[in-house]
Amino acid sequence: MKESLNYIYKEQKEVSIYGGIAALLGWDQMTYMPSKGSEERAEQLSLVSRLVHERVTSETLYNHLKKLNDVANSLTKKDSLVVTKLLRDVEKARKLPAEFVEKMTRTTSIAYGIWQEAREKNDFTLFQPHLEQIVELEKQYYDYIKLPGHPYNTLLDDYEEGMTVEVLQKEFSILRKQLVELLQTITTTELYQRQRPVPLTLNSIQQKESCSILLKHMNIPFDRARLDISTHPFTTSMGDDDVRFTTNYERGGFFSSFFSTAHEAGHALYELGILKGEYKDTIISNAPSLGIHESQSRFWENMIARSKPFWSFFSPLFQKIAPDECKTMNTETWYQAVNQVRPSFIRTEADELTYCLHVILRFELELDLLEDKITVAELPARWNQKVTEFLGITPKNDREGVLQDMHWSGGDFGYFPTYAIGTMYASQLFRQFKKEHQTANDEISQGDFSNILQWLSDHVYQYGSLMTADEIIKQTCGEGLNSKIFIGYLKEKYYPLYEV
Amino acid sequence: MKESLNYIYKEQKEVSIYGGIAALLGWDQMTYMPSKGSEERAEQLSLVSRLVHERVTSETLYNHLKKLNDVANSLTKKDSLVVTKLLRDVEKARKLPAEFVEKMTRTTSIAYGIWQEAREKNDFTLFQPHLEQIVELEKQYYDYIKLPGHPYNTLLDDYEEGMTVEVLQKEFSILRKQLVELLQTITTTELYQRQRPVPLTLNSIQQKESCSILLKHMNIPFDRARLDISTHPFTTSMGDDDVRFTTNYERGGFFSSFFSTAHEAGHALYELGILKGEYKDTIISNAPSLGIHESQSRFWENMIARSKPFWSFFSPLFQKIAPDECKTMNTETWYQAVNQVRPSFIRTEADELTYCLHVILRFELELDLLEDKITVAELPARWNQKVTEFLGITPKNDREGVLQDMHWSGGDFGYFPTYAIGTMYASQLFRQFKKEHQTANDEISQGDFSNILQWLSDHVYQYGSLMTADEIIKQTCGEGLNSKIFIGYLKEKYYPLYEV
Repeated sequence: MKESLNYIYKEQKEVSIYGGIAALLGWDQMTYMPSKGSEERAEQLSLVSRLVHERVTSETLYNHLKKLNDVANSLTKKDSLVVTKLLRDVEKARKLPAEFVEKMTRTTSIAYGIWQEAREKNDFTLFQPHLEQIVELEKQYYDYIKLPGHPYNTLLDDYEEGMTVEVLQKEFSILRKQLVELLQTITTTELYQRQRPVPLTLNSIQQKESCSILLKHMNIPFDRARLDISTHPFTTSMGDDDVRFTTNYERGGFFSSFFSTAHEAGHALYELGILKGEYKDTIISNAPSLGIHESQSRFWENMIARSKPFWSFFSPLFQKIAPDECKTMNTETWYQAVNQVRPSFIRTEADELTYCLHVILRFELELDLLEDKITVAELPARWNQKVTEFLGITPKNDREGVLQDMHWSGGDFGYFPTYAIGTMYASQLFRQFKKEHQTANDEISQGDFSNILQWLSDHVYQYGSLMTADEIIKQTCGEGLNSKIFIGYLKEKYYPLYEV
Repeated sequence: MKESLNYIYKEQKEVSIYGGIAALLGWDQMTYMPSKGSEERAEQLSLVSRLVHERVTSETLYNHLKKLNDVANSLTKKDSLVVTKLLRDVEKARKLPAEFVEKMTRTTSIAYGIWQEAREKNDFTLFQPHLEQIVELEKQYYDYIKLPGHPYNTLLDDYEEGMTVEVLQKEFSILRKQLVELLQTITTTELYQRQRPVPLTLNSIQQKESCSILLKHMNIPFDRARLDISTHPFTTSMGDDDVRFTTNYERGGFFSSFFSTAHEAGHALYELGILKGEYKDTIISNAPSLGIHESQSRFWENMIARSKPFWSFFSPLFQKIAPDECKTMNTETWYQAVNQVRPSFIRTEADELTYCLHVILRFELELDLLEDKITVAELPARWNQKVTEFLGITPKNDREGVLQDMHWSGGDFGYFPTYAIGTMYASQLFRQFKKEHQTANDEISQGDFSNILQWLSDHVYQYGSLMTADEIIKQTCGEGLNSKIFIGYLKEKYYPLYEV
C-alpha cells in the first residue's frame, strides 16, 4: 500500500510538472511566439500531451490505483480522496487512444493559428475545414468516453463535473427568457433611449497605469505572477508560484482592458491562493470546476469593479491618470458608464445583463452541431440569426460573429456554459459576502479589498477539489446553483440605473 | 538497416522537439518569469533534461547506431555523417548517470537565480556555495567523460570540439602578450590621453528605435524571430522558425544595447539560416562549434557595426532618432566614439581590443579552479588581481568583478574561450569577405547588408556541421585559427584611430 501511495503521488507530481511546461508552451504561443513558430509549437505541445497521456493511462498507475481503491476504507481521508478522484480521471483517459490525443492536440494547435488569421481577414471559410475536423474529433471523443445521458454531457464533464444538458437546458431556458424580458424592459426606458456611449479613449500607457493600480489594490503578488498582452485575455499557471494572466490594450476605449484585467486577475488570485500544503501537486490542488473558477473572475470584474463604491475610490485616481479625458467624470458618471446596458456583438465586451445571452447562444449552437442539426458551413448564418433573436441586432461580419472566440479552435466544446454558471455562482457568493460583511461597501470605497480576498480564500480557494463546485456553493450560500439570485442581483442593480 | 535509420532519425526529431521546449523554458526564465517561479522552473528543466538524457543514452538507440556504424561503408554520405557524429555524442552521454545530469540541471537552475540576487546585492558569499557545488560537479563531469589529455579538454569539447588546453595556452599567451603591448602603445598616445568618454545617453525608446532600424537592415525576419529584454543578452532557438534573442536597454548610455543587439542578431541570423533541408532535425543541422557561432555575432557587432562605412550610413539616421543628443555627431565622431579603447571591468561592454583579455582571464581562472590551484572563496581576489595585471585597473566590487557573468551559474566551464576563438575567426572571415567583395564598403555605407548575409550563408550557414569549425575556416580563408590575422586587423584599425 505504501509503495502504491508513493507511486501515485510521484506520478501526480510529474504530471503537474508536465502541466506547467504545457502551460508555458501555450502561454508563449498566445503572447510572444513569432507567427511562423506555430507548426513547431504544435509538435512541442503534442509531444508533451502524449507524454502526459502515457503517464496518466499507464497500466502501472492504473493497477496501483485499483489496488488502493480496493482498500479505500483503510486509507486516510486525504489518500482516499486523491485515489477516488484520480481513478475517475484515469479511467476516462484510458478510454482515449494515444494517437487520438495527439491528433486532437496537433489539430487544435494549428487551428488556433488559422483562427487568428481567419478572424483578422474576416474569412470564415479559412477556418471552416479546421472546425469541421474539430467537430468530428469531438464526436469521436464522445464515442470513446461515453458518459451516461446526452452525448454533450461527456464534453461538459471535463469542465463542469456532474453538470448535465438537462440541468443546463432547464436553467438556461429560464435565464434566457428572463434576460430577454429584462433587456426589453430596460431598452424601452427613457433613460436608455437617451443613453449615449461614453467616449472615453485612454491611450495604452494610461490603460496600463489604470490596470496596474487596480492590480496593486487586488493584492496581486508580482513575484509570483505577471500580466502580459494577448489577443484574447486568459490566465494560466506554470506552477504554484508562477501564474500568468493577460489583457489587451489595443481594442479602443479603455473599458475592455480594465475589466479584462480585473476578470483575469480574479482567476489569477484563485490559482495563487488555491489549496496547497499537504495537497500540493495532487489532483485535489485544482479547481473543482471551471464554473467555480469563472465565479472568481466574474466576482472581481462585475460585483467589485462595476460597483458604485469601487468607483467612488477609483474615480479620483483616474483624474490623475488621465486628467483631460476624465475631467467630466465623477463616481456617479463612472458607475453609469461602466454599467451601460447595450446589446452588442462581442461576448467579452458585453455588459453584465446581456453577457449570459451570448453564452446560451453558443451552448445552443454546440448542441445543434453535435446533434447534426446544423453543419459547420451553416454556422455563421445560424449564429447571426440567434444574435438577432436574442439581442435584436445583427452582426455585419463574421469577425464580430462566429469568429470572435478562440475556444472552438482549441476544441473546447462544452466550455462556454461554465461562463454562465460562474456568473450565477458569483452573484450568489457576492450576496453571501455582503450578508456577512456589513462594512463591505465602506472597505471597497477605500480601495481595501483585503477582506474580500480573505473571504474568498476561506470559502472557495482553501477547498481546492476537497469538495465539488456544488458542495462549495451549498456550504457557503446555503443552496446550489440558482439563476433567480442572479436575476435578483441584476434587477437590484439595473432598475435604479434605468429608473425602472 | 532501414529500420535502424528510421529509428535514429525519429529519435533525433524528438530530441530536437525536447530541445525547443527546453529553450523556451530557459528563455522565459531569463526574460519574463516571476522571480518566485525559479524553483518550479528548475524542476521543469530538470525533467526535460532527464527525458533527453534517457533518449540519447538508451540501449536501443545505441544498438541501432552501432549496427549502422558497422556498415558505414554502405551508407549514403548523409547517413554516414549523421551516424558518426551522433554515435560520438551518444557515447559521451552514456558515460553520465541520469541522476548526475538531473543534479547538474537542478543545481544550475537554482544557482542562476542566486547569481542574479548576488549580483544585485553585490554579495559573492551568497553565490559562493552554489559555485562550489558547480565546480565539484564539473570535476565529476570530467571523471565520467575523461577525454584524453588535460581534464579541461573534456569541458572544452562540449563547446569547441577538438580544441585543447595546449592549443589555447599557446594561442592565448601570444594573444595576451600582443594585446597588452598594443594597449600600452595606445594608452600612451596623445590622442588617448586627451580622449574623453562620449556622454551619449539615449532613453530606452530611442535605444529601441535604433535597434529596430539596425535589425531591419540586418534582414531579421520577425515572423521567425523576436527580440526581448534580459539581464544578460543571449540568443536561443525554439525551432527552425522561432529564434529569440535579447538585449538590455537599461544599462545607461546606448552603446551597450545597440552593440548587444547587433551581436545577438548575428547569432540569430546564423540560427535562422543554418543548414536544414534533408538535414532538418538532425545533429548536422547545428553549429559545429560555439567558436563558429561566436564568429557570426562578432562579425556583425565589430567588423560591420563598428566600421566607418556603417556609421556613414547610420549617423544621419541617429540625427532623426535623437536630434538633440546627436547634434554634434557625424560619421567620424561616431566612428571614434564606438571604437574608443578604454580598459574597463565588464566583458560584454569591453572594446574590441581589450575584450579578449577578459576572456583569457576567465580561462586562466577556470584552469586554476579545476587544477585546485585556487578555491572558489579566493576567486574574487584572484579575479581582481588579474584585471589589474592585464588592464591596469582594479574592480571596486564583485558586481563589476567576478559576479558579472552568468556563465558559471549555468555550469558553463570551458565556454568562455569560444568568445576569443570566435573573435579571431570573425576577423579572418572579414578579411576574406573584403578580399572577395571590393564593393563591400560602398554597400555597407548604403545600409545594404544583403551581400554580407549571402556570403556568410554560402561560407558558413549552409554547412551546419557538415564540416568542423576548423574545416570551414580553412576552406573559406585558406588557413585555420590564426591570432596574427586578428592582431593585424586590430592594428590596421586602431593605429590610425590613435595616430600611432
